[in-house]
Amino acid sequence: MSGCPYFQRKFVSTSKQNLKEDESDDSQTGINKASKGGLIYGDYLQLDKIVTSQVLQSELKGNKIHDEHLFIVTHQAYELWFKQVLWELDSVREIFISGHVRDERNMLKVNTRIHRIVMIFRLLLDQFAVLETMTALDFYDFREYLSPASGFQSLQFRLLENKIGVPHNQRVPYNRRHYRDNFRDQESEHLLQSEQEPTLLQLVEQWLERTPGLEEDGFNFWGKLETNIFEWLRREKEKLEQKPASEMKEEMMAELIKQRDIFLSLFDEKRHDHLVSTGQRRMSYKALQGALMIYFYREEPRFQVPFQLLTSLMDIDTLMTKWRYNHVCMVHRMIGSKDGTGGSSGYQYLRSTVSDRYKVFVDLFNLATFLVPREWVPKLDPSEHTFLYMAECCDSSYCSSSDDSD
Amino acid sequence: MSGCPYFQRKFVSTSKQNLKEDESDDSQTGINKASKGGLIYGDYLQLDKIVTSQVLQSELKGNKIHDEHLFIVTHQAYELWFKQVLWELDSVREIFISGHVRDERNMLKVNTRIHRIVMIFRLLLDQFAVLETMTALDFYDFREYLSPASGFQSLQFRLLENKIGVPHNQRVPYNRRHYRDNFRDQESEHLLQSEQEPTLLQLVEQWLERTPGLEEDGFNFWGKLETNIFEWLRREKEKLEQKPASEMKEEMMAELIKQRDIFLSLFDEKRHDHLVSTGQRRMSYKALQGALMIYFYREEPRFQVPFQLLTSLMDIDTLMTKWRYNHVCMVHRMIGSKDGTGGSSGYQYLRSTVSDRYKVFVDLFNLATFLVPREWVPKLDPSEHTFLYMAECCDSSYCSSSDDSD
Amino acid sequence: MSGCPYFQRKFVSTSKQNLKEDESDDSQTGINKASKGGLIYGDYLQLDKIVTSQVLQSELKGNKIHDEHLFIVTHQAYELWFKQVLWELDSVREIFISGHVRDERNMLKVNTRIHRIVMIFRLLLDQFAVLETMTALDFYDFREYLSPASGFQSLQFRLLENKIGVPHNQRVPYNRRHYRDNFRDQESEHLLQSEQEPTLLQLVEQWLERTPGLEEDGFNFWGKLETNIFEWLRREKEKLEQKPASEMKEEMMAELIKQRDIFLSLFDEKRHDHLVSTGQRRMSYKALQGALMIYFYREEPRFQVPFQLLTSLMDIDTLMTKWRYNHVCMVHRMIGSKDGTGGSSGYQYLRSTVSDRYKVFVDLFNLATFLVPREWVPKLDPSEHTFLYMAECCDSSYCSSSDDSD
Amino acid sequence: MSGCPYFQRKFVSTSKQNLKEDESDDSQTGINKASKGGLIYGDYLQLDKIVTSQVLQSELKGNKIHDEHLFIVTHQAYELWFKQVLWELDSVREIFISGHVRDERNMLKVNTRIHRIVMIFRLLLDQFAVLETMTALDFYDFREYLSPASGFQSLQFRLLENKIGVPHNQRVPYNRRHYRDNFRDQESEHLLQSEQEPTLLQLVEQWLERTPGLEEDGFNFWGKLETNIFEWLRREKEKLEQKPASEMKEEMMAELIKQRDIFLSLFDEKRHDHLVSTGQRRMSYKALQGALMIYFYREEPRFQVPFQLLTSLMDIDTLMTKWRYNHVCMVHRMIGSKDGTGGSSGYQYLRSTVSDRYKVFVDLFNLATFLVPREWVPKLDPSEHTFLYMAECCDSSYCSSSDDSD
Repeated sequence: MSGCPYFQRKFVSTSKQNLKEDESDDSQTGINKASKGGLIYGDYLQLDKIVTSQVLQSELKGNKIHDEHLFIVTHQAYELWFKQVLWELDSVREIFISGHVRDERNMLKVNTRIHRIVMIFRLLLDQFAVLETMTALDFYDFREYLSPASGFQSLQFRLLENKIGVPHNQRVPYNRRHYRDNFRDQESEHLLQSEQEPTLLQLVEQWLERTPGLEEDGFNFWGKLETNIFEWLRREKEKLEQKPASEMKEEMMAELIKQRDIFLSLFDEKRHDHLVSTGQRRMSYKALQGALMIYFYREEPRFQVPFQLLTSLMDIDTLMTKWRYNHVCMVHRMIGSKDGTGGSSGYQYLRSTVSDRYKVFVDLFNLATFLVPREWVPKLDPSEHTFLYMAECCDSSYCSSSDDSD
Repeated sequence: MSGCPYFQRKFVSTSKQNLKEDESDDSQTGINKASKGGLIYGDYLQLDKIVTSQVLQSELKGNKIHDEHLFIVTHQAYELWFKQVLWELDSVREIFISGHVRDERNMLKVNTRIHRIVMIFRLLLDQFAVLETMTALDFYDFREYLSPASGFQSLQFRLLENKIGVPHNQRVPYNRRHYRDNFRDQESEHLLQSEQEPTLLQLVEQWLERTPGLEEDGFNFWGKLETNIFEWLRREKEKLEQKPASEMKEEMMAELIKQRDIFLSLFDEKRHDHLVSTGQRRMSYKALQGALMIYFYREEPRFQVPFQLLTSLMDIDTLMTKWRYNHVCMVHRMIGSKDGTGGSSGYQYLRSTVSDRYKVFVDLFNLATFLVPREWVPKLDPSEHTFLYMAECCDSSYCSSSDDSD
Repeated sequence: MSGCPYFQRKFVSTSKQNLKEDESDDSQTGINKASKGGLIYGDYLQLDKIVTSQVLQSELKGNKIHDEHLFIVTHQAYELWFKQVLWELDSVREIFISGHVRDERNMLKVNTRIHRIVMIFRLLLDQFAVLETMTALDFYDFREYLSPASGFQSLQFRLLENKIGVPHNQRVPYNRRHYRDNFRDQESEHLLQSEQEPTLLQLVEQWLERTPGLEEDGFNFWGKLETNIFEWLRREKEKLEQKPASEMKEEMMAELIKQRDIFLSLFDEKRHDHLVSTGQRRMSYKALQGALMIYFYREEPRFQVPFQLLTSLMDIDTLMTKWRYNHVCMVHRMIGSKDGTGGSSGYQYLRSTVSDRYKVFVDLFNLATFLVPREWVPKLDPSEHTFLYMAECCDSSYCSSSDDSD
Repeated sequence: MSGCPYFQRKFVSTSKQNLKEDESDDSQTGINKASKGGLIYGDYLQLDKIVTSQVLQSELKGNKIHDEHLFIVTHQAYELWFKQVLWELDSVREIFISGHVRDERNMLKVNTRIHRIVMIFRLLLDQFAVLETMTALDFYDFREYLSPASGFQSLQFRLLENKIGVPHNQRVPYNRRHYRDNFRDQESEHLLQSEQEPTLLQLVEQWLERTPGLEEDGFNFWGKLETNIFEWLRREKEKLEQKPASEMKEEMMAELIKQRDIFLSLFDEKRHDHLVSTGQRRMSYKALQGALMIYFYREEPRFQVPFQLLTSLMDIDTLMTKWRYNHVCMVHRMIGSKDGTGGSSGYQYLRSTVSDRYKVFVDLFNLATFLVPREWVPKLDPSEHTFLYMAECCDSSYCSSSDDSD
């Protein structure tokens, strides 16, 4: 933000620092220093470290290749942004873990930060275009010097995947080894630990399970929905049966039966559990119900912000998968696919990660299969309305302002 | 590039290293180490420095504000990319300074690297969208801690401006001081030095002055062009005079006279020098001629790549000015304009930099005023053709392959 | 969406159509037709019109210029998207005008559609990059054929400006004429009418005036805020006075007085009205209060979605101003600035529109000047909390589901 | 380009029109009309057709759904840009077909237009973000009305694929039918015809086969390269054999043998022909040699522009494949994947098109597998240099200026 003046409200500076009595003396010193210079842009950003960390292997080996600098800077920029994504991700997980999310006021933070991750991933997609100004031939000139370093070793990216909820038991092995075994001991430890913490997926799952309206002795969304859907399908069948026989009628009847099967599967908890066990579904049955409830009642004030959250979570999933795909395309360009000559496992490895098994919020996408016409969505009556509107009040037992730094 | 395998051609590694006999022993050690691990991604990128340089002032002052992390990372990412832009810029200037550009083979490098700068600036424009996920209210929570640091103090950005050719005598003062006086001694020195080196503008100017075809005793482009243009305008006038009197005729005659004045100014060297002295033009008269020659004959094989270069230079100018404008927009949003209450000089300062006086290649844009119909562009006859085609041969007295690392 | 199967749920088609009894016969016919082919992609999109509307003036004049096709298609794409922006804008204005916005459930629609406008403008900024593949020289080859047509004559863009709230009395004249006099009678009429309809600015203003919490006999936000701010500044002054005399103390005292003046102006309704009369502020005093209230209490569930709306409105303003600036840059490149030779008024005209007087939601930006530390924002006590949470219930006198097609 | 003045050079208008004597009278009329208004923006762009072609099926069926408008406009924008891509593609193919490409001056046009296609596809990728503001639930409200229309039926996209060179025998069937059978007779005819015209791939292939330097009785690039590569590998082997036995040595020897096999395959024409027959390679053996020659000598003035062309062709391939992948992601989001319940073939169909068999210039990517260190690239001696530099002269038997409208 070159030229940005950061608004020099020195006197406020004093005031706030005085609020913290134990450091009032220091703060005065601080002010005096500031008047003679004080905090300086480059020191604040630690640019002495940031812009001096570009050491070219090719230069060390006596054959400096111009483009290696771009290669380094691009990867460092990726890592800087991964750091930021982890920062946002950890803060959101913390809000969920600490139960602060029960205070609906924290939903703004959750949404803003998740949305920020979305914006960062969009930038990271655009960033490929810069690295792609380097051709395969430019890369060839120095790629040997980098051996055996590999982008697979990006600790932050693996952490990020783990914390969002990429399932470790579905990970494609790399170099024929468990993914963690490609890291140093300390890093491997770090990764193991991240596997054991609650993932964003799990935290969202628990939150979805608490969606108001799911209670069987309350609004009983799931029960009402099941009744409505099968009544709807029954009527469709009736209408269809009254039509004169025709090829079209046959087709439509077949379609209707297929549709019925799909919905039968939706209300079949055992089938759900089976799909979970095979990794085709990732959330609990209850959480799925919560998500569908939010979908259908997204316009209720209580559900507008939750609906945005679900949308952003799908954005993240989509962007991560696009990131992987763009990466595959770039690697293909840089090192070829070995043309079936049995070469690089790198390209094949990367291609294998562009699959639904790396998708975390796949259930949110697949719910699109289970939509029903608006007129068959169970109606909210005034008492339910109230219930929904009041819900946050019930949760809001907070008095003091929440900690901004969570 | 997570997962990218960098193509492990270990044996080639050996071969090339052996070419450098003085370090053959080391290289073997290198290889042995590699087999037990060797170069590691995180070490290569010095991530221990890159991802540990985010120290929040708000946290130091005992009031950690979540969003300050984004503020730091965004600025660090800008500085990383500024480093890369400087890297490309210096290498291009070096090719020009050393005279390597006379070997036309180096034009590919020049063009590729200038185009890379274009791509980086495009990314930097997109990057604003990430910082804009922080609202004025979020910024307010920590902006006092940053005082008096200012983005104006970005050394790299000022260097970049100087090296491209932003004229220092046209710089808007900052904090009522000469721009250099806002920096520490060593940095100020660095800036002064950059002012004294040849700028990209000057180097391009010299290169344009050498454009083949400008020689008065040769193709004499400028002389031929002047003749053609005034013959064209004379004929237009003749035709117009033969038309019956009408309001339209009057209008067109007035327009024609205006047009003639514009072209008279083009061939008036004194007027050119005057415009240079006031800063409205930046290039020599001869360089301007070269640029227009390249414009008109851009399809000649000899001029295709030079034409791309001129286009990219305009891209850089445009992107830098857009970058400044986006910056102004963001600062307005973050700290307001003070609403005429006489507050922040920051917003006003920034607005003043979004003007043509910070444009470096403004002459290339303004040449659009001096275009003529294709049929009035002086024809190349076969001997000139040959001349143009052969030109690079004349220059190419090189034998050894040029240094790749320039 | 090549290949997208649009999910052929034929039987549902039947069901819904049967709900509308008066056309049940037609619907059957419709189905039969569908089975033999039915709706076809190209017919649906009227591609016979869309992709046959590219008529090159240069070709009509016997001198076909390849790049004119790009020029036409780009402008048509702009107009298509302007149509979409108007569609969203009109629907949002309708929700406000009809009072449907009092049903908080409609806020999701409002926000989604305003956000969609933001996304469209982002695309339109990217779109310049395509037209910029045409150089000034390519444009020169056909631009004479287009005379005197001018992009100024884009009816949809002028409508869009009017409906958002660009003030017509601040419009820069074009061709020395009132902007409407550059249009045909029917279009001019259309524009005049759009000036007389409520603008998005006015509708948002009225909505902000109703912000709960502003009531003087209720929470009395404005009164409480004034008290707090001056108490805060008084304490700052006290603290400052106790410090030993120093240059720094003088500076800080001066800064404090300046700050106090800024806040005095905030609570000075007469001054506000004066700024409105000069066009420096655009919203009513009450609306400004509402906006600041939403800023300060943005984390309250009731205010999260309104806060997003204010943010998106600023996005639109910023994007429109960036669009104008990018446009200026492109025109500079295409036709030059005439280099002070008194030529094209076009470039000068466009530059004059890139100013704050074309900004619509400028007040929302400038509120950033009036922020205060969190601890001085008036506290909500439990009764106010309830008030805020319940507010939407009070408004929600609706029973039937709102019309989706508004 | 709202506000763009198109530079009203009326008198030039006259002049040029007078050049065409047969219409001198008309031109005068034209001018008079112009003075009273003349060409108008909206008429020029045929906006009466463009912005009135949005007819909502949902509205026709009595249930107007707001978001269908976005759906229509987005698809129309895609089709507009496809038209432009076809325009550029046809003009480039025409330059190749007519042999104009032998005049090297036309390479600027070829490159500019191919690069423009790249920029358009980048925009089309960004355009998904706008349509993604519509959720699955919004789409559900009207998707039934669109049945059975399908984006697969985009004639222009299929033409575009055919003209670039997507092999029809590798096309995935759609709806269990040959892809052409999903179109109306006239369209199907059009598609069949496009299959029979020379594709961009074939034209580039022929052009590559003519790369100067390939002649066996001349520079004999291929022969020299084969000699060099195997000499290089032989020396590597020798060096390796001198090292003491170790696990590392074994590994490197294995790697070396693998590498040798890869290069053996490169010089094995029969193997090449086999790969062509299975669709793994797409270009002739000779064309492959030309491409590799351009890669290795890309800095030679003669090859700089050709090298850019090859790079842009890979860009197009990559962007088309990314477009397909983004499309898959969006469809997954809009209609789900049917969760293994055997539903939509649409998602599965689309996924199957994101594969290397739809890649056209796959050979250009895979050449990255066959790079060699710079010191082993056959040297050009002065006579070859001259040869390379002079080559264009030999081709340039043109005298008259080439047709701009090709």
